[in-house]
Amino acid sequence: MDVADTTSMSTIPRTPAIVTRRDELRAAVAAAKRQGRSIGVVPTMGGLHAGHLSLVDAACRECDFTIVTIFVNPTQFAPGEDFEKYPRDLEADLRSLSVHPVNLVFAPADGEMYRPGHATYVEMGGLAKVWEGACRPTHFRGVATIVLKLLNMTAPDVAYFGQKDYQQSLLVRRMVDDLDLDVNIRVCPIVRDADGLALSSRNVYLGKDARRRALALSASLALAARLVEEGRRQADPIRAEIERLLSETPGVRVQYVAIVDPETMQEVDRISGRTLVAVAAVVDGTRLIDNRLIGDEAPAAGSLSPA
Amino acid sequence: MDVADTTSMSTIPRTPAIVTRRDELRAAVAAAKRQGRSIGVVPTMGGLHAGHLSLVDAACRECDFTIVTIFVNPTQFAPGEDFEKYPRDLEADLRSLSVHPVNLVFAPADGEMYRPGHATYVEMGGLAKVWEGACRPTHFRGVATIVLKLLNMTAPDVAYFGQKDYQQSLLVRRMVDDLDLDVNIRVCPIVRDADGLALSSRNVYLGKDARRRALALSASLALAARLVEEGRRQADPIRAEIERLLSETPGVRVQYVAIVDPETMQEVDRISGRTLVAVAAVVDGTRLIDNRLIGDEAPAAGSLSPA
Repeated sequence: MDVADTTSMSTIPRTPAIVTRRDELRAAVAAAKRQGRSIGVVPTMGGLHAGHLSLVDAACRECDFTIVTIFVNPTQFAPGEDFEKYPRDLEADLRSLSVHPVNLVFAPADGEMYRPGHATYVEMGGLAKVWEGACRPTHFRGVATIVLKLLNMTAPDVAYFGQKDYQQSLLVRRMVDDLDLDVNIRVCPIVRDADGLALSSRNVYLGKDARRRALALSASLALAARLVEEGRRQADPIRAEIERLLSETPGVRVQYVAIVDPETMQEVDRISGRTLVAVAAVVDGTRLIDNRLIGDEAPAAGSLSPA
Repeated sequence: MDVADTTSMSTIPRTPAIVTRRDELRAAVAAAKRQGRSIGVVPTMGGLHAGHLSLVDAACRECDFTIVTIFVNPTQFAPGEDFEKYPRDLEADLRSLSVHPVNLVFAPADGEMYRPGHATYVEMGGLAKVWEGACRPTHFRGVATIVLKLLNMTAPDVAYFGQKDYQQSLLVRRMVDDLDLDVNIRVCPIVRDADGLALSSRNVYLGKDARRRALALSASLALAARLVEEGRRQADPIRAEIERLLSETPGVRVQYVAIVDPETMQEVDRISGRTLVAVAAVVDGTRLIDNRLIGDEAPAAGSLSPA
C-alpha cells in the first residue's frame, strides 16, 4: 500500500485505501509517523451517518493522517442484543467516506481483532457501573477493550468520539488516563435530524410510527432545558416531567432519566451550572439513548478535555 | 533532565538518571525515540538482585536506551500479603544499577501510578485463573494492569521479564498479543544462588533455617529432571515424588506442583518433549515459587517469543 497516495485533500469522490489486517495497519501508521504526520482515528462500527462524518471531518481538519476504523465489536453486545442485525454495509460506508479526505479505512477481516485464545479484557469500575452500565452490564467492558486495542493499533495523537455516547466518552477519557495512554480524546457534538432525533446507526430499525415516537427522547431533553431556562432548579420535578413526557408516548418504555454531574455522572439534587440530562428508552423494541448539557455554562461537548 | 548525559557506556559506578513523574518519563522516552534509539524496559518492584540485573544486562546489550522501573505495585498484593513489608531500598537499588549502563530509572512518586478515581483494570481469563492465579486470585489483575501502564508510559521495543515468574511471563505475552501492543517480550533464565535457591526479593524474609529448608524447592525440580532423564514419563508418580520431597521438609507447606505444557500451563499426563515443572510452597511463613523446563527439548527460556 502506498501511503503517499492516500493523502490527497481533494474532495472528488474516491475510495479511500482500505486495510483489513493489523500488520498492514501498523505499517501504514509507522510510515505516516516517519513522515512526521499527526494521526487522527475515528473508531466506528460502520452504519455511518452524519454524526460519524462530523467526527471524520474534525479528524481530517485537525490531523495529518486520518484513520477510520469499521468493526462491529461483538464483545460490547450482550446475548439477545442486536449484534446479528446491526447494520453492516461496507460499500455504503466507503461511499460515505469517499468525499472526505480520509487516508485509511481499517475494516478488519473476521478473526483479526479477537484471535484464538483471546483472554484479556479491560474492566472498569465506578462510572462504568451506572446508567448505561447498569442497563448493559458487559457493554463497557467490550467498549473499553476494543477502544484500547484500536488505540494500540493506530497509535493516534487524537481519537474522536461522539457526545451521543456521552458516558462512553467519559469512560474512554478515564481509561486513557488510568492506563497512561498518550492520546487526546476529542468529543464532538451530537448531530440531529431536522426534527431533533439524534443520529444513530440503530435508527434504521425504526418503522415510520416508531421514528415519530422516538422524537419523545429529544423532546424530553428540550423540555428539561426549557424548564431550567424558566428558572426551575430542583432535579426531582424536572425528572418527573421528563419521565411523564416519555411514558405518555405510546410504545416508549423508559430505562432511565439521569440528571447528573457531567464529569462524574452522579445524580444532582439541584441544577447549578452545567448539568447533563441523559435518557434511555426502548421505542417499539429499539433501544435508543440521547443526552443534552443544560444549565448556565453548557458549552459544546468538543471542549471536553482529557482528565 | 539531559538525556544525552545518561547514555555513557562506561561501567564506572555512577548514579543513573532518576525520574519520578510520568510526564518526565514520557519526555525522556520521546527524546530517545527522536534520536532513533531502541528502548528496552525492565519493570521491577525493586529489591534488586542478580536476577533483575541479568535482565538489565540483556536490555543494555540489546537496546539503545534502557529504562528500569522500580515500583512496589499495591494492586498485585492481596490483603494480608506482604505489601507493607516488601523490601524497599531505593538507594541500594541505585547502587546495584550504578555499574550497569542504564539510561534511566523510573521510580514513581507516591500517587503517580494510581491517581484519584482510578477505575481501570486488565482482567485476564484462562491462564490467569490456574496455579498462581488460583492461589492469588487478584494477583494477575494487578500485574497485568501495572505492566500495561508501564509499557504505555515507556513505549519500549523490548520488555524484559524473568523466567522465575514463568506464568506471569506467559500472561504478559498473552496480554501483549490480545491488546495489540507493539512490543517484544523477552524472558530471561532464572538466576540461582550457588546452592540452587532461585533468587527472589522475598528471600530476605528467610531466616537461616528457612533459607536451608527453601532449598527443597529447587531440589524437587532437580529430582524431577533426574527422573525424566532416567526415562520416567508418567506425570503422576513424578508429581508424587516432588510432593513427598517438599512435604517431608520441616516447615514447608506445598501449595501446588504443576507438571504442565509450557505454553498453556495445562497439566500433562505424560512427559514428551519440553515440559514445565512449577512449584509453590510456603516456607516458614514465606511464600516461594520456582520452576524448571525439563524434557528433551528444554531450551533456554530466552527463546520464548511473543505469540
